[in-house]
Amino acid sequence: MAVKTLKWVGGIDGYLEIIDQRILPGEYKIIRCCTVKQLYDAIKMLAVRGAPAIGVAGGYGAVLSLQEFSQKNADRKARRTGRQKTEDRRQRLENSAVSAVKVLKRDCEYLASSRPTAVNLRWAIERIVKCAEKSEGKTLLGLRKAVLKEANVICREDVEMCRKIGANGDRFIKNGMGILTHCNAGALATAGQGTALSVLYEAKKRGKKFGVFVDETRPLLQGARLTAWELKRAKIDTTVICDNMAAALMRDGLIDMVITGADRIAANGDAANKTGTYCLSVLAKAHRIPFYIAAPSSTFDLKTKTGKDIPIEQRSADEIRFCGDKQTAPDGVDIYNPAFDVTPAENITAIITERGVIEKPNGHRVKKNFI
Amino acid sequence: MAVKTLKWVGGIDGYLEIIDQRILPGEYKIIRCCTVKQLYDAIKMLAVRGAPAIGVAGGYGAVLSLQEFSQKNADRKARRTGRQKTEDRRQRLENSAVSAVKVLKRDCEYLASSRPTAVNLRWAIERIVKCAEKSEGKTLLGLRKAVLKEANVICREDVEMCRKIGANGDRFIKNGMGILTHCNAGALATAGQGTALSVLYEAKKRGKKFGVFVDETRPLLQGARLTAWELKRAKIDTTVICDNMAAALMRDGLIDMVITGADRIAANGDAANKTGTYCLSVLAKAHRIPFYIAAPSSTFDLKTKTGKDIPIEQRSADEIRFCGDKQTAPDGVDIYNPAFDVTPAENITAIITERGVIEKPNGHRVKKNFI
Repeated sequence: MAVKTLKWVGGIDGYLEIIDQRILPGEYKIIRCCTVKQLYDAIKMLAVRGAPAIGVAGGYGAVLSLQEFSQKNADRKARRTGRQKTEDRRQRLENSAVSAVKVLKRDCEYLASSRPTAVNLRWAIERIVKCAEKSEGKTLLGLRKAVLKEANVICREDVEMCRKIGANGDRFIKNGMGILTHCNAGALATAGQGTALSVLYEAKKRGKKFGVFVDETRPLLQGARLTAWELKRAKIDTTVICDNMAAALMRDGLIDMVITGADRIAANGDAANKTGTYCLSVLAKAHRIPFYIAAPSSTFDLKTKTGKDIPIEQRSADEIRFCGDKQTAPDGVDIYNPAFDVTPAENITAIITERGVIEKPNGHRVKKNFI
Repeated sequence: MAVKTLKWVGGIDGYLEIIDQRILPGEYKIIRCCTVKQLYDAIKMLAVRGAPAIGVAGGYGAVLSLQEFSQKNADRKARRTGRQKTEDRRQRLENSAVSAVKVLKRDCEYLASSRPTAVNLRWAIERIVKCAEKSEGKTLLGLRKAVLKEANVICREDVEMCRKIGANGDRFIKNGMGILTHCNAGALATAGQGTALSVLYEAKKRGKKFGVFVDETRPLLQGARLTAWELKRAKIDTTVICDNMAAALMRDGLIDMVITGADRIAANGDAANKTGTYCLSVLAKAHRIPFYIAAPSSTFDLKTKTGKDIPIEQRSADEIRFCGDKQTAPDGVDIYNPAFDVTPAENITAIITERGVIEKPNGHRVKKNFI
């Protein structure tokens, strides 16, 4: 029901299809990535975004690397003559899985450099390199099959993680509810049906009827551009609002719960997420509305004690000074543009993970989730 | 120190200069309105906006009407010959103040139709028509002088109202404060130095040092486009934020007070203002930060008992679906776009008017302000 952000088409000679998120919601276009360079550009230019989705794409990048290696060898074979025996020996050497793994590692480093802070991309690439190293003794064909298999496993695990989060969160959704979400924690950010939005997709599958209010999510408008787009596609009743309108809707009794994703959760349950999430948690508390976070266990960073220890990335002022080509704030004036804010654990009703639900999160309960 | 949104240049043959607010902050341009039609277009197309500013502009529109009438007469006189005695009689008749008032009334109706819901425009025009009717016995020149005088009085009263609000609110501003404001309740919306921003301009004049955070104010971005522009021009330390960032700034201790304008205040002190104001009042309360409203007495509508009785204008979905030429929310998805929300009196620390300050506003204290 949820949209598929990325899809591997075919076997070891296949390619990766991704939805171009840069031009949504004005245009819907599928990009076909057949080379490592094409995939690098797609990640770098944010055609594909969302930490889990980028990780899965990175895995398939390794498959493309081996495909290109294999193709180059075949071309050389086709060009060689009977007299090129020395050349032949070199070719046989290069044709081996060992040489292929060397190239694969170089290509993976290149892919990882596209979004240096994306933890999942680095994680997926390390995992696929490990798998390739284990398969060095195989033929090139055997290596290629093993790497594709691993990329598929990474993808399937992500899909399964999303589904489990949805299944665990489903019990919080009741018929007739008005549900508010912020930013995009949906299918467009994962290989599966998302995290926060997965809860909504699961509830819909189970026949529940509800309406979703989507914060447009300034400054980059991921809510209006992406979340509204994928929910509408899934035929879920969706209304876009400006971020500053949520409070009045809560007062008017139109919102029964808030659910968002998270970028990093500290050991005590404090959660960093897209700027504006803390605001919603305060408003929800003031209006006695439950506030949920849905995120995979990999989002927890148990080495970070509390939200105060989470570094907040400051982004470019131009994201606020311009909207498209239109100048929206004067030159020379200061602009404050943090990418994230931190919601304290005491404002969170429950954190929904693929392992289970952490109600009234605190250090003790977060720890229990990992036993 | 504050910018002058509009300025009458010259005597009865003068013209109205206004800042073109449509192209701020990208461009700063003064428009010269020399005819009723030019002024109508400027109001209609939002080159000049803000209820008090539009009212003052309307008064000068009547001066332009008489100027055009007078010019037409002069042209006819120049064209007439010795034989045109019958014509002459008609001219003399038309030249009278009585005919001029007739034309003035028609032109004023036309001007009032440019923004049918702007109460101040209708109010200013009725006042100037009354003044013109009183002067019907005068010569055309006498009438023109009387109408210009009344337009100047309307303008001066607005300037004085702004100044008094500023002076009454000044005591709430302390050195070193961080002050949050929303939308534009400034010089660009009045003939004087604004309402909420007047408090800041007065404090600055008295040598106080403080920093202002300006909510960009979705969807039309009046905070980022207009407030930031006029505060920067007045050399006040200004930082633009997205509306959803205010909560985190409050938690981080960077905001010591919130001050906004109001569009209508009910008899019990509930105040309707730009969408997002209620949100700020809840956040301020949760963070124990004082929340002020600055507005002239004319904003109070004592016939409206509480905020629940204030009708909330719904505006076009396209204000949220597009930003300039860029599509920011998908076609077909619902969009909720109320222009205002209502802040309950219990969330307001004080209402600052030109008559005085209403602390902890309620029905009784609001009534006392009008005795």
